[in-house]
Amino acid sequence: MTVKSEQTRQLVAGVALRMFREIGFAKTTMRAIAAEAGVSVGNAYYYFASKDDLVQELYLQVQADHAARAAEALEDAVDLTGRLKATLHTGLDAMAPYHRFGGDFIATAIRPTSPVNPFAAGSTAAREASLAIFRTAVEAAKPPAPKKLRSDLPELLWLCYMAVTLFWVYDTSEGQQRTRRLVDGAVPLITRGLSLVRMPGVGRILDDFLSLSRSIRS
Amino acid sequence: MTVKSEQTRQLVAGVALRMFREIGFAKTTMRAIAAEAGVSVGNAYYYFASKDDLVQELYLQVQADHAARAAEALEDAVDLTGRLKATLHTGLDAMAPYHRFGGDFIATAIRPTSPVNPFAAGSTAAREASLAIFRTAVEAAKPPAPKKLRSDLPELLWLCYMAVTLFWVYDTSEGQQRTRRLVDGAVPLITRGLSLVRMPGVGRILDDFLSLSRSIRS
Repeated sequence: MTVKSEQTRQLVAGVALRMFREIGFAKTTMRAIAAEAGVSVGNAYYYFASKDDLVQELYLQVQADHAARAAEALEDAVDLTGRLKATLHTGLDAMAPYHRFGGDFIATAIRPTSPVNPFAAGSTAAREASLAIFRTAVEAAKPPAPKKLRSDLPELLWLCYMAVTLFWVYDTSEGQQRTRRLVDGAVPLITRGLSLVRMPGVGRILDDFLSLSRSIRS
Repeated sequence: MTVKSEQTRQLVAGVALRMFREIGFAKTTMRAIAAEAGVSVGNAYYYFASKDDLVQELYLQVQADHAARAAEALEDAVDLTGRLKATLHTGLDAMAPYHRFGGDFIATAIRPTSPVNPFAAGSTAAREASLAIFRTAVEAAKPPAPKKLRSDLPELLWLCYMAVTLFWVYDTSEGQQRTRRLVDGAVPLITRGLSLVRMPGVGRILDDFLSLSRSIRS
């Protein structure tokens, strides 16, 4: 891509994301994006074949923002509780400008056949970027997470993050404070739960849980 | 309501639900429902102000079907594992005819502002009916569920059922066998997990989990 066309692509993406934040997903059409960006509709479609492609762009930008915020917050966080709270709170920070558009968006993304479903093939890059943030949070934690859980934990925590995101979309409290309280309350429970893994009765249930979760995902 | 108008109402509802099953939610219009039922469009609207009202009717009928199936299956189930499996499997049985329409439907219902959202005020009757099925499953179980959990357990299990339903919508395996395996694998883990509640370390985490879950829901 030439410098000029990369600039046009970023211009279109920037305008689209701003319109998503300001007037919402449903009302933002490709035509309106092109007009606002001062390019032809054909030119806008040249860079993004559909609004779905712009949603993928949105995912990637939110993930990049989340990664940058998390990297900074994780500098001061040592134990898993602190690292996980930092990771989840910075995720909420990165999504915050899009909250108004959350309901619209989730109605589009939840459909199993949607190309912007977070589990869909088209979302692989954004999903991997998001997973990598959780991997970093777990891998450098001191004390380390229980060994038998370490490889599955980032993905399980990412699924918790998807659940938190769903809760956040429904959260109409001021500044989504209710979701913040959920994170602050749930993370210590998760890490305390992990510390029980060494108890024999708990360990056996965990083994069976992990093998079930692997068999269901495969 | 007169006998005649109750008959018309049931005719319209029956036609709508059959069309939902056969051609899906998106393609079924009030106009098409009226034509198929042989009533005027105005008459159809007299009984159901919108397609959303027909979805509420669908919820209620699925819940009634689930309750009848569960009551029969619970006759032979004594322990919580058996009772919970029976409750979840009969729930899947009751929803099965609508699987094709699951994706469409969830895209409508997930929107926080949707009147057919399972957490919305308009869904209270169906939600209470569904919750009651889980309450029956828990209350008559022998041995009984741990005392400190008994009052919260039906609602927590109902939330698990919502998660299973989401998994089921995504499940494209033959006859949704993958969801059946999830139920068969997850239920014993849940009930084994409950038996750990009497261990001190686990009990304290559970207490904190319950108070968090109550504070978040209130």
